[in-house]
Amino acid sequence: MSTENGNKKLTPVSELGEFGLIKHLTKNFSLKHRSSIKGVGDDAAVLYHQEAVTLVSTDLLIENIHFDLIYTPLKHLGYKAIVVNLSDIYAMNGEPQQITVSLGLSSRFTVEALDELYEGIYAACQRYNVDLVGGDTTSSNKGLIISITAIGTAEAENIVYRSGAKVGDLICVSGDLGAAYLGLQLLEREKEIFLADSKVKPDLEEQTHLVGRLLKPEARKDTIELLRKHRLQPTSMIDISDGLASELFHICEQSQVGCRIYEENIPIHPETHQMALRFRISPTTCALSGGEDYELLFTIDPKYRDELDDLATYGIRVIGNIVPQAEGKKLYTREEVHDLIAQGWKHF
Amino acid sequence: MSTENGNKKLTPVSELGEFGLIKHLTKNFSLKHRSSIKGVGDDAAVLYHQEAVTLVSTDLLIENIHFDLIYTPLKHLGYKAIVVNLSDIYAMNGEPQQITVSLGLSSRFTVEALDELYEGIYAACQRYNVDLVGGDTTSSNKGLIISITAIGTAEAENIVYRSGAKVGDLICVSGDLGAAYLGLQLLEREKEIFLADSKVKPDLEEQTHLVGRLLKPEARKDTIELLRKHRLQPTSMIDISDGLASELFHICEQSQVGCRIYEENIPIHPETHQMALRFRISPTTCALSGGEDYELLFTIDPKYRDELDDLATYGIRVIGNIVPQAEGKKLYTREEVHDLIAQGWKHF
Repeated sequence: MSTENGNKKLTPVSELGEFGLIKHLTKNFSLKHRSSIKGVGDDAAVLYHQEAVTLVSTDLLIENIHFDLIYTPLKHLGYKAIVVNLSDIYAMNGEPQQITVSLGLSSRFTVEALDELYEGIYAACQRYNVDLVGGDTTSSNKGLIISITAIGTAEAENIVYRSGAKVGDLICVSGDLGAAYLGLQLLEREKEIFLADSKVKPDLEEQTHLVGRLLKPEARKDTIELLRKHRLQPTSMIDISDGLASELFHICEQSQVGCRIYEENIPIHPETHQMALRFRISPTTCALSGGEDYELLFTIDPKYRDELDDLATYGIRVIGNIVPQAEGKKLYTREEVHDLIAQGWKHF
Repeated sequence: MSTENGNKKLTPVSELGEFGLIKHLTKNFSLKHRSSIKGVGDDAAVLYHQEAVTLVSTDLLIENIHFDLIYTPLKHLGYKAIVVNLSDIYAMNGEPQQITVSLGLSSRFTVEALDELYEGIYAACQRYNVDLVGGDTTSSNKGLIISITAIGTAEAENIVYRSGAKVGDLICVSGDLGAAYLGLQLLEREKEIFLADSKVKPDLEEQTHLVGRLLKPEARKDTIELLRKHRLQPTSMIDISDGLASELFHICEQSQVGCRIYEENIPIHPETHQMALRFRISPTTCALSGGEDYELLFTIDPKYRDELDDLATYGIRVIGNIVPQAEGKKLYTREEVHDLIAQGWKHF
């Protein structure tokens, strides 16, 4: 039985049932890849990646741990949930082709709310040319739970692991860092103000970059394509989800090397810089330990220095270089040398 | 900082951190398949299924929706979480080779508790020859959440979909049905008694089959191997997770056929029969609508009738046959004909 809420029709999920709901939510999704032989609707999806290898990455997103629906529109959430998983496939230098989406839903979510979530999922699938091929939908006693598995392919010789960085390699990043972290601080502050007095309107108009980077991140498909076009194969790569420092630690640990990063080369957006100072945080700290940037961090043979410098116009920046493991992991500021500390996101 | 609880050391997860925890939990898992090129530890797992197709199935398990830790040992839960996903790969006539495990953990779970969970996951991986290749571990504000993705392979021509049943085909099931449902009723009853008076010991010794079927199900790897050995390729197949009736509906809908099932042929274990009567439920209803059996339901060309009858010793039973769609979905008892009703599990 549907009810009217204002002008909006609200349909409880129970009206459709589990299988009806899946059918309803996935009815607009068509399969685009020849590799997607069978999508939603059987015991398993059937994929055929021929001679290419298959890449699999998975993420679990839990309401009020990973997202707050007070300031996150469901459409944005759906989009972001997909994008952050695709980011992992790009970070292997692969091409994402399929995703599965599992949802745990408490009874407060109506069919219309889920339609919004799936609008975002659909938009991400279109933008990144990815097929939705499966999932699981169940009730939840605890808000919204989203589990995504992203599946991609790559030629075996093109895969870039975290473990391939060599001494002397240049360390590069795409885009700019620290913005999503400040977007989160900003929205959390506005939420507190709103909860204290719901008549106060949020004042976010000047912070579109920060809020946009948090709520609607993009995966760096363009960076991967750019590097490929210029025949620049990174020696190691990772996506920046937990902050630059934490990801540098992963690369250094798995490649058994050290690194030297120059503070002045870390790309920080002017809006990030300004807001960090307003929050009395160092902009560098936001970049090093913020997280949720979904930029790519990669290392590359120094013989490609000139080609890399040409890519500066596309936002690819050289921020340092790989050194022997014994030299540690260092941040060079204009005046001093610091040991890098990996804080990352602390979920525990 | 670890604390002592009786003689048992209890370590908060925060002591290890996310990456330390993943390392700790997965340290005993080695990769067994040549197709598992890279497992845990990079942005994505790397698999190589060569010319075979890749099968992907995923499940989301939420505490107090799908399992109750009052009567579910963590080791059993870990085992079951894997097995029910592998069951989906077998139901495609595939061979499971890899899994990913994502966990959402509230702070009440210690490292030692997770060790137990992973003991079960490890046992299932060993028993079914499957590699753990990835996952995600995060905190949860709401108990335990487990998301599993199972990945398998099959030769394209061997895949069995839900959609291939033909009029005249024999309908078969492996094992026996309805036991897990009664195991659940039994444990729920004991839980209520225990919550009312914690001095009363549970009396489950005579119900090992029922409780075992609920807490430690197995996937029918043996049935798939048996059918392959006898060169019997099903025309359609599905695993019975929501009850026989619901799965028959899926096959009939996707194959655009009807079915006729004979009540007396539905395999029910004596313990199931006895307990159903004690609970004043029809044993047939338990089999039709119970769920969590993880047996295989499949259809097969009637020319193989004799071969199938030979497999009765392995617990393969012919329970009916496929009829034209217009004839509907019917249950024949000794005296009457009923329309089948698909109730399945109602999560919503």
